[in-house]
Amino acid sequence: MKFDRIIYNGFVVTVNPDFQIIENGVVGIKDGIIQFVEARKKDITLYDAGDAIDAQGGIIMPGLVNAHAHLPMSIFRGLADDLPLAQWLNEYIFPAEQKHILPETVRIGSLLSCAEMIMSGTTTCCDGYFYEDDVANAVFETGLRAVCAQGVIDFPAPGVADPAKNIATAVAFVEKWKNRSSLLTPSIFCHSPYTCSEETLKQAKKAADSLGVRFQIHVAETQFEFNQSMETNGKSPVEYLDNLGIINENTIVSHAVWVNEKEIEIIADQKAKIVHCPESNMKLASGIAPIPEMIEKGISVGLGTDGCASNNNLDLFAEMDSAAKLHKVFKSDPTVMAAKLIVKMATIEGAKAIGLGDSIGSLEPGKQADIIIIDTNKPHLTPMYHPESHLVYAANGADVSDVFVAGRALMRNYVPVYLDVKDVMHKAKSIGLAIKQNHATIT
Amino acid sequence: MKFDRIIYNGFVVTVNPDFQIIENGVVGIKDGIIQFVEARKKDITLYDAGDAIDAQGGIIMPGLVNAHAHLPMSIFRGLADDLPLAQWLNEYIFPAEQKHILPETVRIGSLLSCAEMIMSGTTTCCDGYFYEDDVANAVFETGLRAVCAQGVIDFPAPGVADPAKNIATAVAFVEKWKNRSSLLTPSIFCHSPYTCSEETLKQAKKAADSLGVRFQIHVAETQFEFNQSMETNGKSPVEYLDNLGIINENTIVSHAVWVNEKEIEIIADQKAKIVHCPESNMKLASGIAPIPEMIEKGISVGLGTDGCASNNNLDLFAEMDSAAKLHKVFKSDPTVMAAKLIVKMATIEGAKAIGLGDSIGSLEPGKQADIIIIDTNKPHLTPMYHPESHLVYAANGADVSDVFVAGRALMRNYVPVYLDVKDVMHKAKSIGLAIKQNHATIT
Repeated sequence: MKFDRIIYNGFVVTVNPDFQIIENGVVGIKDGIIQFVEARKKDITLYDAGDAIDAQGGIIMPGLVNAHAHLPMSIFRGLADDLPLAQWLNEYIFPAEQKHILPETVRIGSLLSCAEMIMSGTTTCCDGYFYEDDVANAVFETGLRAVCAQGVIDFPAPGVADPAKNIATAVAFVEKWKNRSSLLTPSIFCHSPYTCSEETLKQAKKAADSLGVRFQIHVAETQFEFNQSMETNGKSPVEYLDNLGIINENTIVSHAVWVNEKEIEIIADQKAKIVHCPESNMKLASGIAPIPEMIEKGISVGLGTDGCASNNNLDLFAEMDSAAKLHKVFKSDPTVMAAKLIVKMATIEGAKAIGLGDSIGSLEPGKQADIIIIDTNKPHLTPMYHPESHLVYAANGADVSDVFVAGRALMRNYVPVYLDVKDVMHKAKSIGLAIKQNHATIT
Repeated sequence: MKFDRIIYNGFVVTVNPDFQIIENGVVGIKDGIIQFVEARKKDITLYDAGDAIDAQGGIIMPGLVNAHAHLPMSIFRGLADDLPLAQWLNEYIFPAEQKHILPETVRIGSLLSCAEMIMSGTTTCCDGYFYEDDVANAVFETGLRAVCAQGVIDFPAPGVADPAKNIATAVAFVEKWKNRSSLLTPSIFCHSPYTCSEETLKQAKKAADSLGVRFQIHVAETQFEFNQSMETNGKSPVEYLDNLGIINENTIVSHAVWVNEKEIEIIADQKAKIVHCPESNMKLASGIAPIPEMIEKGISVGLGTDGCASNNNLDLFAEMDSAAKLHKVFKSDPTVMAAKLIVKMATIEGAKAIGLGDSIGSLEPGKQADIIIIDTNKPHLTPMYHPESHLVYAANGADVSDVFVAGRALMRNYVPVYLDVKDVMHKAKSIGLAIKQNHATIT
């Protein structure tokens, strides 16, 4: 067989079920699919490949999976920080969204996020926002892989002034994008149990099930939400949603901070998926999700950055580092959330959570060739005793030199291939300037 | 006056007492000293300067101050992680130190750390280790600014087999380096109250006071240390040390995790300085230092990375991010540890803590020209509403493009000027390989 491309001369962190790390490994790709992953057996010229990429002793690994993001919100990156949640939302984020979230801002914000993801090693993201068709088109343009969901909320939303039309809009989005591209999987995203009625939640979930797509929702993010749910519904957010039939194997539950042992049991029994967003939860002071307990129960837990208004970047390396360290200090136990587990969360577990576990998340024959190379020829990655340790505790997104999705190079030697990053940044800066001029509160 | 150099076309984050940020600012330098910091008043060619550096719209700010580090330990970066503290120390770090800490390893580890610091915007560090003369020589070679301290411990230590000679060795180090270079300030570092006897502590502190140098010590890092102190001394670590006259304005207390309200009062009353190492404290599960309470009491709190065996990098941008987020989530309050405060900790407050507050830590006329430029022409730093937000929540060390210490360029346009980084990495890798081969426990 003639291969399209091989990648060699690196530590291949396969993230296969044994978490095998192959020193001096070779990965062979044909038609966008991984054909083999092996320790180098012969001279590189004897591998029959159209292109041979030298990883120069770095790390070759699956592309990272950002399992919870709101791509267009990068346009609000750092608009307001360090504020009480209500003030942050009501005085900054909601007014800015109402005024500035239009198809073109969504498009530019999404492209900006894609540029950031490509340049920091994320090859797949799971997004939920409004004007999602514009998000999907932007993502599609960049060559990244994504699960995209049109948001559903019982308030007038950007692009959907009448909440009664939210579900129909979301369904139309799924129908449009289903089977359109192997890289783009549509989904439905209900904002939360406190912003969607019982009826909306049930209808949206029913629609997702009948369309055969993942259902995403923010659940139990803050103590305020938990308390409100107890008052209004007499049940916690998880119990309330479980009662409505929302919590099952096709549901992606983001945040899940305020959940107790019993609720973890529910999530585990129903095989629902969790996305942990430690940096957002820390920055907004939402709380600390009981992730070690969830993993103990066999729940698939992916990692997400959340939107850039509350993080403020899309760097999954930073997210890995925070996820590991936060739980160690919180549990007073340095052994929890060890490096290999964290790398799995950012790859295969995230892939499973968003419904793509069979096709991405590890370097194994038959899987999609979503691959990144980490350049370890840097002082902060020298020496290297354990590749997974560097990935979690020492590296950052800027160490990613090469990015492939379905075998196609999106970045080579630090230079994005297709995307005109300068143009995107220029447009994002113009939008940022307009936002700044419109908000007297920004000083 | 003809200036040696001006830096222009950037947001100057002065970190002066008003935390003034000057858009389109210009900084003028002569003889290594900042001469002026102003909003641009005229065509750049009309500033009479030998060299004019265009910051290209980025951030111009004081070089970062890493107020607690053990530079040679970068050679053990990622040697072992995710282990119980005792196992980590006894099975990995102590054996590795005993076998491999020799002058040449100390030299290469220090140069490696200096390379990492230069490339991530740290212009000053405060170090404590053994073979400190080799550390100091290495730092001196790179052009960085540092406070260096020879370690004192009541055990056989690298280079000082007989503990009885520890204080004399430390004193000799101070005498050798005092007044030798304006960039290098010697100091004395007692490891901790549990590894140094009462007599050692008192003698070392007396020596530091009579030599007029800062006294550094790890205090109340772990609960184990706190409990042991209560059992052995009938007092907490802070009370015990205060009783010995150790806690005063010339003392740098690192970690200070297990301190209560009363002990914070002692530290504040005695005007001792604190160095907060959030990432080390998180990774080793040591605990969460009551930093907001200390700052409330007017204590100078700097930021430190600790050694690379417990972090695992020297990136103060990551440390800033973690410091902000950790305390927000721990206090359930997103308003604590706001971005401006965090930037101060990484600059002027760290400078004050290590005794250099009058000469570095802010961009003000008369201060040393220790300056870095952050390149914000990147997707993850676009758009920019508030420079300090990006510094804390979005940037990382790899965004630093230019570094100056006392007006001298140590990095220009991402390329270190003096240091042969490739050669240092090559040597560090060889040492790493030897360490790996000598430790059967490393798999």
